[in-house]
Amino acid sequence: MNLILLQPGDLLDEHSARITDPRRLKHLHEVHQAQPGDELTLGLADGNIGRGRLTALDRHQACFALDALSQAPPPALDIELVLALPRPRMLARSLEHVTALGVKHITLLHSRRVEKSYWQSPELDPEKIRRHLLLGLEQARDTRTPRVILEPRFKPFLEDRLPARLANREGLLAHPGMDAACPRGLASPALLIVGPEGGFVPYEVEQLLAAGCRGIQLGERILRVETAVVALLARLSPL
Amino acid sequence: MNLILLQPGDLLDEHSARITDPRRLKHLHEVHQAQPGDELTLGLADGNIGRGRLTALDRHQACFALDALSQAPPPALDIELVLALPRPRMLARSLEHVTALGVKHITLLHSRRVEKSYWQSPELDPEKIRRHLLLGLEQARDTRTPRVILEPRFKPFLEDRLPARLANREGLLAHPGMDAACPRGLASPALLIVGPEGGFVPYEVEQLLAAGCRGIQLGERILRVETAVVALLARLSPL
Repeated sequence: MNLILLQPGDLLDEHSARITDPRRLKHLHEVHQAQPGDELTLGLADGNIGRGRLTALDRHQACFALDALSQAPPPALDIELVLALPRPRMLARSLEHVTALGVKHITLLHSRRVEKSYWQSPELDPEKIRRHLLLGLEQARDTRTPRVILEPRFKPFLEDRLPARLANREGLLAHPGMDAACPRGLASPALLIVGPEGGFVPYEVEQLLAAGCRGIQLGERILRVETAVVALLARLSPL
Repeated sequence: MNLILLQPGDLLDEHSARITDPRRLKHLHEVHQAQPGDELTLGLADGNIGRGRLTALDRHQACFALDALSQAPPPALDIELVLALPRPRMLARSLEHVTALGVKHITLLHSRRVEKSYWQSPELDPEKIRRHLLLGLEQARDTRTPRVILEPRFKPFLEDRLPARLANREGLLAHPGMDAACPRGLASPALLIVGPEGGFVPYEVEQLLAAGCRGIQLGERILRVETAVVALLARLSPL
């Protein structure tokens, strides 16, 4: 937790805030070993970041006096991510990784090799998803929560939503064996599509290419989804 | 397990092999749902990869008839990694990530902000480390096990070992706030040094720069160690 991300309900007034949730209190006590008087980095959800002073801390609450929160959060990555729904534990970690890297638009997509049971996982509960997004933001000192969209059917996504999503950004389909090496440092907005463990099936690859996506690959090595998304985003990122 | 990595003891003769360890048998049964007759990808430790046919499978053993293992493993990444020892769970995952990405030389280093207790972790047991390296190799269809060196004292590493390590490769110190952005697609061998959660302390940074390392950074975002190593390696990789 490199940033204490204040939600509107945490603000008492313009210059003070109080948090009461056990997770963050525990972190302040045990990891930060914070004491009243300590200066910490705070941010306002979807707003700026700055410094604040811990004025009180006990088992039930932490209170802060806020300086002007005048610093903009770090720049977002203008790469939207479409990820075939990974197995639940991998999903959790992937959400944290890509949020920390600055992705602001995440679509979780069904595809042939996604196990149907994954769509029933408690990890898809909006509150659970939100928790992983917050962990990614707190890690990277960011304040802007990504939007997460579930697409539990491949074809309606492909036919009804993808064309509009590609109107202003280049589609990149990361898939082993594609012709082009993953580009470095993109100069314009992109939508990155990453398949499931085992990859998209040939029909899905054909359809995504036919929809205008460019096929890219990272070489012979087969990577786990969570390794691959970080490697792809780091390589594509212009930041 | 995208590759069954045969150790010398698994070979019965030039054309047949048998594995008996519970981990891989379980994977063959439960994940691959393999049946005798199936063709699978196999590799010989530190050797080539190729195809083999499963000739027998039960609870105690899996037997394979091997074709000529004639394909070279994927190219290694000529970037040595020096990583401040992460907390145990992060260490396990980081070893798998970087092995899958093709790193062949990993040094785990002490630094001021590494908790002393981490050096007592059972995760540092050579057999445990080896297990994570094997998982990374099996994932990426690689056969060459990375070398892992423990450096539980910073100063002897800095003074006695680092100069020789930098004789033929450029040292890159990844640290927030350094002048240069992380380069893309290195043309020559490198040694990448990554600090602990919280970073190297200023004295350590000074000493590493004085030893000839170049300071690089990935931007304002503070990343978890396992995210940062993958992002850095993906960006530096010429492959």
